[in-house]
Amino acid sequence: MKIKAGIIGATGYAGAELVRILLTHPEAEIAAISSVSFEGKPLSEVYPSYKGLCDMECQTQDEVVAKSDVIFAALPHGLSQELAAQCDKEGKAFIDLGADFRLKSEEEYQEWYGCTFLDHDLHKRSVYGLPELFRDAIKGKKIIANPGCYTTGAPLALAPAVINGLVSTDGIIVDSKSGVTGAGRKPNQGNHYPELNEGFHAYKVANHRHTPEIEQTLSRLSGQKVTITFVPHLLPVNRGILSTCYAKIKDGVTFEQIQKAYKDFYQDEFFVRLLPDGANADIHNIKYSNFCDISLHHDKRTNTLIAISAIDNMVKGAAGQAIQNMNIIFDLPETTGRVLVPPAF
Amino acid sequence: MKIKAGIIGATGYAGAELVRILLTHPEAEIAAISSVSFEGKPLSEVYPSYKGLCDMECQTQDEVVAKSDVIFAALPHGLSQELAAQCDKEGKAFIDLGADFRLKSEEEYQEWYGCTFLDHDLHKRSVYGLPELFRDAIKGKKIIANPGCYTTGAPLALAPAVINGLVSTDGIIVDSKSGVTGAGRKPNQGNHYPELNEGFHAYKVANHRHTPEIEQTLSRLSGQKVTITFVPHLLPVNRGILSTCYAKIKDGVTFEQIQKAYKDFYQDEFFVRLLPDGANADIHNIKYSNFCDISLHHDKRTNTLIAISAIDNMVKGAAGQAIQNMNIIFDLPETTGRVLVPPAF
Amino acid sequence: MKIKAGIIGATGYAGAELVRILLTHPEAEIAAISSVSFEGKPLSEVYPSYKGLCDMECQTQDEVVAKSDVIFAALPHGLSQELAAQCDKEGKAFIDLGADFRLKSEEEYQEWYGCTFLDHDLHKRSVYGLPELFRDAIKGKKIIANPGCYTTGAPLALAPAVINGLVSTDGIIVDSKSGVTGAGRKPNQGNHYPELNEGFHAYKVANHRHTPEIEQTLSRLSGQKVTITFVPHLLPVNRGILSTCYAKIKDGVTFEQIQKAYKDFYQDEFFVRLLPDGANADIHNIKYSNFCDISLHHDKRTNTLIAISAIDNMVKGAAGQAIQNMNIIFDLPETTGRVLVPPAF
Amino acid sequence: MKIKAGIIGATGYAGAELVRILLTHPEAEIAAISSVSFEGKPLSEVYPSYKGLCDMECQTQDEVVAKSDVIFAALPHGLSQELAAQCDKEGKAFIDLGADFRLKSEEEYQEWYGCTFLDHDLHKRSVYGLPELFRDAIKGKKIIANPGCYTTGAPLALAPAVINGLVSTDGIIVDSKSGVTGAGRKPNQGNHYPELNEGFHAYKVANHRHTPEIEQTLSRLSGQKVTITFVPHLLPVNRGILSTCYAKIKDGVTFEQIQKAYKDFYQDEFFVRLLPDGANADIHNIKYSNFCDISLHHDKRTNTLIAISAIDNMVKGAAGQAIQNMNIIFDLPETTGRVLVPPAF
Repeated sequence: MKIKAGIIGATGYAGAELVRILLTHPEAEIAAISSVSFEGKPLSEVYPSYKGLCDMECQTQDEVVAKSDVIFAALPHGLSQELAAQCDKEGKAFIDLGADFRLKSEEEYQEWYGCTFLDHDLHKRSVYGLPELFRDAIKGKKIIANPGCYTTGAPLALAPAVINGLVSTDGIIVDSKSGVTGAGRKPNQGNHYPELNEGFHAYKVANHRHTPEIEQTLSRLSGQKVTITFVPHLLPVNRGILSTCYAKIKDGVTFEQIQKAYKDFYQDEFFVRLLPDGANADIHNIKYSNFCDISLHHDKRTNTLIAISAIDNMVKGAAGQAIQNMNIIFDLPETTGRVLVPPAF
Repeated sequence: MKIKAGIIGATGYAGAELVRILLTHPEAEIAAISSVSFEGKPLSEVYPSYKGLCDMECQTQDEVVAKSDVIFAALPHGLSQELAAQCDKEGKAFIDLGADFRLKSEEEYQEWYGCTFLDHDLHKRSVYGLPELFRDAIKGKKIIANPGCYTTGAPLALAPAVINGLVSTDGIIVDSKSGVTGAGRKPNQGNHYPELNEGFHAYKVANHRHTPEIEQTLSRLSGQKVTITFVPHLLPVNRGILSTCYAKIKDGVTFEQIQKAYKDFYQDEFFVRLLPDGANADIHNIKYSNFCDISLHHDKRTNTLIAISAIDNMVKGAAGQAIQNMNIIFDLPETTGRVLVPPAF
Repeated sequence: MKIKAGIIGATGYAGAELVRILLTHPEAEIAAISSVSFEGKPLSEVYPSYKGLCDMECQTQDEVVAKSDVIFAALPHGLSQELAAQCDKEGKAFIDLGADFRLKSEEEYQEWYGCTFLDHDLHKRSVYGLPELFRDAIKGKKIIANPGCYTTGAPLALAPAVINGLVSTDGIIVDSKSGVTGAGRKPNQGNHYPELNEGFHAYKVANHRHTPEIEQTLSRLSGQKVTITFVPHLLPVNRGILSTCYAKIKDGVTFEQIQKAYKDFYQDEFFVRLLPDGANADIHNIKYSNFCDISLHHDKRTNTLIAISAIDNMVKGAAGQAIQNMNIIFDLPETTGRVLVPPAF
Repeated sequence: MKIKAGIIGATGYAGAELVRILLTHPEAEIAAISSVSFEGKPLSEVYPSYKGLCDMECQTQDEVVAKSDVIFAALPHGLSQELAAQCDKEGKAFIDLGADFRLKSEEEYQEWYGCTFLDHDLHKRSVYGLPELFRDAIKGKKIIANPGCYTTGAPLALAPAVINGLVSTDGIIVDSKSGVTGAGRKPNQGNHYPELNEGFHAYKVANHRHTPEIEQTLSRLSGQKVTITFVPHLLPVNRGILSTCYAKIKDGVTFEQIQKAYKDFYQDEFFVRLLPDGANADIHNIKYSNFCDISLHHDKRTNTLIAISAIDNMVKGAAGQAIQNMNIIFDLPETTGRVLVPPAF
């Protein structure tokens, strides 16, 4: 029998992307979907792409929880904690695409999001769902904090170097560029076509909420408190995040050692593709898929490692990774339902 | 055992799209691929999107034929006839994405393409593979002429009206707008990013080779010689063709009759989605999929039917339809391998 | 002394474009600007492009009228009539970029816009400002109805053929494709970047308010009531309208006669560029300028004239034409301030 | 009498942009243009945008030199040295948009470009034309090395901090993102529309020829040898470069001091716009203009200065700056001919 999956917040972009992936998942099916803004309306009215494929009507949150084995929540921050408690009480798995369970430090959560932990036990039992880095911790858990988009690409680009102590964890710079879907479905002046098209700019410079989350992951990997400089930019494309990460190579470490560390670390990871020497990671090559492409570069003149990762912010950076987490906690091969071949163009 | 599929011309855009679709087809597998320009090179070197998914090397045409049950050819016109003969002799199915077998009249073929029929018997045994219109003729055949891109969208938009004699076949105008991939993988000044981006123009006005092919289909459907005015335009998007088709409604015919004719005609077609009243077909909603969305509009002031279809030129207009044809001739449900859900964005 | 120009509705796209053009006009200067939404704010806060160039604050409508010799109004329909009366009383020239004075028939105005004429005398004294077609009528007038965007490109494409009776005025079809700025500055779901990007669709099919205005012009030119089929589409580009116009060539008329009629008609027009045989009008080549490029094509098989025009919807289709009208009524050479060279890319 | 300007390499993108700017320059006129590939052809055949504006035919290089007071050369590197010598001999001003005179060190020129200096005296008499930084040195000179595109934006973003010793010159990182026109007019696979559209990637990572040129400028400004890490990326837009520059703030220096240093340094510069606190430099706001917008940001957590500049790579990064240099050496106000208002959209 198929896993019954419910989606709360199905009409947002992450929710809609979950629908796309679940529609071809061989071991799961969409049991119910909800949306505050579109209750009673079929999803295909909101997204005509899905006509004939998912004409299911949006129901209430409670109906979704009742009908599902696993609940995916794609909600603004602050709205997931009570829902997680409800799922927990009813014995349902809960995968949160929002931010409420990502930061382990309540202090940081408060500083960056202005909210507090409602139930500390729940937070303790939740796990951060970045499979390539924390797979073992995910297995057997039922409350999963699915990482944010920037917070998937940058750590994957840096992990092998940081874990193996090959670069200094001081002075790491992450310069990221994201497609527009990252800003959500709600129109605003900044995403209005004529004002974004043929434009490009940074935003929330050194001030973005994903900063402490990237730092939390790098600290956990390196075993020391890491502080980074993080600058996100907005690209005039629909999907994709390219993160250009700069780290000083430690004295005595060669670039070849670094390359080997990456090869060893990612050799069995289906969804991480370490590119050959000379290639450049490109969001063009991973869009609509769960892949993370990584290219490594050496600035010999300043002995700096430049590690560049490309992910689809809506797939590996949101819905695809959530499905990967579902596969893990339901003991399926992680790649189940990986019908998402990145198109060549 | 899976169908062994071979692709000749795999490094062109249609060939690459065949790869994408076949990679997730449950009943077929890629047996071999060929490319004149990239012989000996892995496909994933040409299209890094496919790294880890299709690293197969390009072989010779003969090797592909030898290893395959069905051969897809995505070649410039003039190069398919001998290949078809070879496949025919070896008892292999042959699906031609090129133009050599599309026109039934050698005279027209000569006029528009400057070539002659090498083997009239072969042409007689070939069939035009537009399943929604000519399904019965396709079954049991082994040489399939897969329609061109414009020649799929426009006929599907007009078929029910023409078949039922609801519009005049005189004065039909097809104003089509195509994404750039239709012009192929080879760079030229016209497709150079800075000169196409933020631009839009018509080309080959009333002079495009797909004109006689659209006319052949409409003539076959209506039982009378149809001549149309066809103007293609180049859109600054990667994929998709929108065809805005104008036809005079016959006296005494109501728009409601026309709507009903379309509903009846397409009600069992999975891949054709007749949109509800008030909706507008949009290439945004079908891209990367095999769907053809159709919206019908009535200009009451001039009593004109405006039928608009949207297809992905690379899928329903090329590779997806070719797989649909393969499914038909191998007695599989037509929708087998339809893992191509159009993304919501 | 320079002409003092005031702009009412300066923070909309047409208003902002007027600012861009007036900033380099040698004989006019911006005296004052107004905006209901941004009163008291500098324009450069709304459009950072203008920082240091137009940091003028938005004032009230009355202040603008008081300080200006000529008032440009870029307002939603229905809001210009009283303003026109006010300008008229104070002896100021009034150039309306809105729709209130465009239709000469109150009945049509009521049918398409749902409003009535407040002052019939004012409407009688107003003139339709399409200089290349009605230049003589514009001279000496003070209330100018600046044409809409679609209603400039399509009539210019058809005028010489219609005036000279070379094509049938029955069955004319205008298939237009417009850039996004035509829909204005206010964000909505349809113009939200991820939903428009890589998309293309028709809208208001056979139902757009510019229909009667195009018909009014063609009727005036031909001396008979013309009814057309008009279908606008939305292009994923910022600027530009391409109109593909179809008209049946009359018996006995040759295409060469038509070409000659166009050459004769437009030979002294600086802003209309008749392209050489074989070229295709492209919005790429006229963007940011006041040019209208026209290419003529002959469908020999159906004896149809296909006349294609390309304009920048914001310049020749709005602000640039408004300045051209200002130049006329202030007795300046029409090309004064034509600093708008279309960039090559 | 107007300055007679000649353009060698007029059919490349930088050459075409020079034409656009010179067409509206009040004190200069285009005397002659040349192009190896299009000799004898009118420029408007290559760029239909210029039809009726610059239909001048491409002549030989010698003809251009003979007819001009100032020669602009937009040639591949290695081709300017002899031409400079020729202009020098004939007493003509020479403004080189290529790379031959940019690097003062022959060793570096050899290392990065593989060429040698043909005439050391000529190189000594040449001057690096970045007016905002080296204006005084430019005055009175006749051989100008116009800076490259990346090499204008990054130094302008960093200059006031570096000159005043407010940041460490160790560990500076420049992460730049450029529009496609930077790669020139010649089509190739990388700039082919379907492969660039919806893509984004770095290229020539830590290996781009503009690296030593940026370093040369920063070294000259700081009085010490500066080595940087420079990573360029390719944006799917036509124009614009955004450079995100990272520099460690020195101990004891406040961000307010830095802000003041920038204000003081740029207060009289028309073409550099220091944006207000909280704003983000955006290529959208400077395209088609000679402006360089700069926004300053403080990463308090790591005490890093993030200075971001936006320029149009074809204007301030090429042709516009060349005209600015021409104005200087012909004793015109630098802003003469500044008809290039950045459009609001």
